[in-house]
Amino acid sequence: MGKTPWGLTVRAVIFDGQGRCLLVRRSKQNKSFGGMWEWPGGKVDSGEDFAAALHREVAEETGLAVELAGLACSAGYDLPKIKVALLCLEARLVGSDEVKLSDEHDAFEWVSPIDIPRYEYMPGVTPMMLEYAKKR
Amino acid sequence: MGKTPWGLTVRAVIFDGQGRCLLVRRSKQNKSFGGMWEWPGGKVDSGEDFAAALHREVAEETGLAVELAGLACSAGYDLPKIKVALLCLEARLVGSDEVKLSDEHDAFEWVSPIDIPRYEYMPGVTPMMLEYAKKR
Repeated sequence: MGKTPWGLTVRAVIFDGQGRCLLVRRSKQNKSFGGMWEWPGGKVDSGEDFAAALHREVAEETGLAVELAGLACSAGYDLPKIKVALLCLEARLVGSDEVKLSDEHDAFEWVSPIDIPRYEYMPGVTPMMLEYAKKR
Repeated sequence: MGKTPWGLTVRAVIFDGQGRCLLVRRSKQNKSFGGMWEWPGGKVDSGEDFAAALHREVAEETGLAVELAGLACSAGYDLPKIKVALLCLEARLVGSDEVKLSDEHDAFEWVSPIDIPRYEYMPGVTPMMLEYAKKR
């Protein structure tokens, strides 16, 4: 194994009935990338199934229930103490589209993929976001 | 959660000192995609860390020790009873380049990325392999 540990992060590209996906904004007071936008998701805990982790994070951060439909995109990037493999899955709403944010985020938007480039993201994922916007 | 469970598979694009990556051929008697080529790797077991799983699979299938360097590519595909998210990581050899195959594979080749399109892969991963070959 390399010296730097690897972590797995999962995010959901949740589409509504109008082909728009959900972006959430990291709370301004968050010292780590506060104010930047992202798809809901987060770290897979040690021993946790990646799909279960994604359902858990989506529920915690948005209150939404989703069905995972397929792979959207992926990226690899370095954080100070860890290398991250990021896996993003496309998802469909199951039930209500009412978003209930946690303290982790302070805004959300339903965004057409074509408008994804208009938001600011963590540098490590920006190329992936732009490529996905172009592909969709 | 959707009706179909999701599984996570990891594969390593292991480069030698000459910029060639290792392909292994699934044993002919394997009823599941026998004769097709792939990068070493396999399923992440329940509760297993994805990087640990990749080191384990690479050691079991090739006898090689590697260091994981970064994300290579990813794909999503459906098998009869499971949806698969596939994450491929680039890796460097740590120590010997002597390949010792398990029963699971019956041939191996060190291949320049430009020659990746000359081999046959599972249909679900072929577009990813071709795209990776073009990108490298």
